[in-house]
Amino acid sequence: MLIVQKFGGTSVGDLERIANVAKRVAKTKDEGNDVIVVVSAMSGETNKLIGYAEHFSSSPASKEMDMLLSSGERVTSALLSIALQEMGYNALSMSGRKAGIYTDAKHSSARISHINTDNMKQRLKEGNIIVVAGFQGITEDDNVSTLGRGGSDLSAVAIAGAMGADLCEIYTDVDGVYTTDPRIVRNAKKIEKISYDEMLEFASLGAKVLQNRSVEMAKKLNVNLVTRSSFNENEGTLITKEENIMEQPIVSGIAVDKNQARVSLRNVKDEPGIAAKVFSKLAENDINVDMIIQNVGHDGTANLGFTVPENELESAKDIMDKLNAAENLEFDSNIAKVSIVGVGMKNHSGVAGTAFTTMADNNINIEMISTSEIKISMIVDEKYSELAVRALHEAYELDKA
Amino acid sequence: MLIVQKFGGTSVGDLERIANVAKRVAKTKDEGNDVIVVVSAMSGETNKLIGYAEHFSSSPASKEMDMLLSSGERVTSALLSIALQEMGYNALSMSGRKAGIYTDAKHSSARISHINTDNMKQRLKEGNIIVVAGFQGITEDDNVSTLGRGGSDLSAVAIAGAMGADLCEIYTDVDGVYTTDPRIVRNAKKIEKISYDEMLEFASLGAKVLQNRSVEMAKKLNVNLVTRSSFNENEGTLITKEENIMEQPIVSGIAVDKNQARVSLRNVKDEPGIAAKVFSKLAENDINVDMIIQNVGHDGTANLGFTVPENELESAKDIMDKLNAAENLEFDSNIAKVSIVGVGMKNHSGVAGTAFTTMADNNINIEMISTSEIKISMIVDEKYSELAVRALHEAYELDKA
Repeated sequence: MLIVQKFGGTSVGDLERIANVAKRVAKTKDEGNDVIVVVSAMSGETNKLIGYAEHFSSSPASKEMDMLLSSGERVTSALLSIALQEMGYNALSMSGRKAGIYTDAKHSSARISHINTDNMKQRLKEGNIIVVAGFQGITEDDNVSTLGRGGSDLSAVAIAGAMGADLCEIYTDVDGVYTTDPRIVRNAKKIEKISYDEMLEFASLGAKVLQNRSVEMAKKLNVNLVTRSSFNENEGTLITKEENIMEQPIVSGIAVDKNQARVSLRNVKDEPGIAAKVFSKLAENDINVDMIIQNVGHDGTANLGFTVPENELESAKDIMDKLNAAENLEFDSNIAKVSIVGVGMKNHSGVAGTAFTTMADNNINIEMISTSEIKISMIVDEKYSELAVRALHEAYELDKA
Repeated sequence: MLIVQKFGGTSVGDLERIANVAKRVAKTKDEGNDVIVVVSAMSGETNKLIGYAEHFSSSPASKEMDMLLSSGERVTSALLSIALQEMGYNALSMSGRKAGIYTDAKHSSARISHINTDNMKQRLKEGNIIVVAGFQGITEDDNVSTLGRGGSDLSAVAIAGAMGADLCEIYTDVDGVYTTDPRIVRNAKKIEKISYDEMLEFASLGAKVLQNRSVEMAKKLNVNLVTRSSFNENEGTLITKEENIMEQPIVSGIAVDKNQARVSLRNVKDEPGIAAKVFSKLAENDINVDMIIQNVGHDGTANLGFTVPENELESAKDIMDKLNAAENLEFDSNIAKVSIVGVGMKNHSGVAGTAFTTMADNNINIEMISTSEIKISMIVDEKYSELAVRALHEAYELDKA
């Protein structure tokens, strides 16, 4: 098998941890696999360098930032190669450029355009373990670029896709994806397998294991992704095609996102296109509107409500104040979004019914609802959110094996 | 004018110092010059990375060490570029590769083979200040290489040579080259101009301002080299062709090297080629023999003496013990080499006479002597070395303007 293993900043956070990573990589090689390793900068390094740059400029040129920040991953890749060589393995480090990772010229948040795999293939064939500096690539005009947040995950997934790897393992400090946050529900279970689409929902609903960009790329390139811990030997969670998951549970997990705020416009002015004006102004200002409800009150006046990330509420307030679109404006950041995710609900009715019944049984008012094929999201008062998660987790029997 | 300015690790040792370097570079640019800057890693960084590597291996692969260590200079070059951009200058960083510095494949101590100046020329023409990561280049097969000790100086001199720069300024924490060590002679004077050959003698005699390799390259490429301090505005010392120095003093300075040891073989065995055997064994073991004397005693037996660097004395002892070349072996590390350097002595007699008279007047015994066209070196008891330096400094009137 060809396995791509990616180790994040915490996993390579100090020299002892790098030594542990070397052992794990060696074990994978010993088991008869070809191995490509992708590494992040040692934790703290990137922030240190950003701090240095900010000493000089509040908005340093992204091209120079890429030159600066790409050094951290180079360091880790060289150190891990040295550790592997000392253990008797043929290993070599590669910068993003040497690994053939080409990107567009959008420095500091570049997108991978293609990967020239010749060098990696040749070096693998010679029996080497390849250690690639993650997070970075090279532009067509030969300048180093970086991929933005979660960039090393992207490097790993893109390499796995381009090389046709059998598996892409993303090592972090958590064991995998859980049916819900174990800090809220003590008997939350680790999910063995989950589909790309479910994982995308979890990621956008606030689960911090993987970023959407990486999961989307894995889905597109059909890469079998495993997220697992570098600090133990536990099996992680496999993220794969729906077809690869034999026994699909109806509901896979419950997500909760407390960083939500609600904006309510009561008695919206009776002007044509007023709602369009509201949302286009928000879009212009890069404010991410999530859920929207609109209804007509008993007296014929319209009400409009929507949610935004909590840290964008202040900007949303400013825009609403200026827009003067309704008689009455209300803002509420004490809300949370509780979501039920499961591809199984596509083929099963009654999933939503169970959710609403559970909420009613616990006297939790549902303020807003939105659904997709594989997800039901409900806005509730933040103080009831943990109760809601626990009740739903039990109602869908997610604590059972 | 095109000026190459090189700033060493101490000069870019922290963010404030980098900011000061930016001001100095900007001033040079404002004065109407084109500027290429060459930077070292921030002081301490390279040693930190070496320590990391040594955690994993006592002899890490030099290729991986080059990947590891080259990151430090990249960081400084990006930071200095950001600082300059913030001040409103067009600046950009370049790795050794981007600057077109090609080397042989002797990783960790590579030699520059040639410089492709196209990129630098183009970017200068566009009005940019170029900030090159020193100490590094790229091999013909596209792997990053480093140049070994003093590598950033070499980068600067090589770039100055290839670009036909008018001046190559090497900034350190000292003001320039002095007539002798100011800690020994308080009224030692800074030398305004000195020839390449004299500087080579000073460098090999223990003056730590510049390394021989850089001076040799400057001589070969005919680069006007200035060594000066980055911490003040004092003029430094210009190292240039002999012809460029109008008023050549007879003696330029006095050097002292206390890190010398002497090996004496008394009653050397009467075998053909015994001396050759001694020196070839030492050479095989990479021991640098400096001065040699051989004489025949009153009773017809031969004595042989030579000096080695103090830290190679133990190895020399081992070799001598095994070789069994003489009846009597003596080792003495309490010696020092005091040298008088000056191109002027080529055309002036009496320089050596003054030296010997001065030593005699001070009752200092000269144990060994060696001379070249522009240098007289004397081995003396270490405890008299400072007295010797002071007396010679006065005798040649080096304290006079």
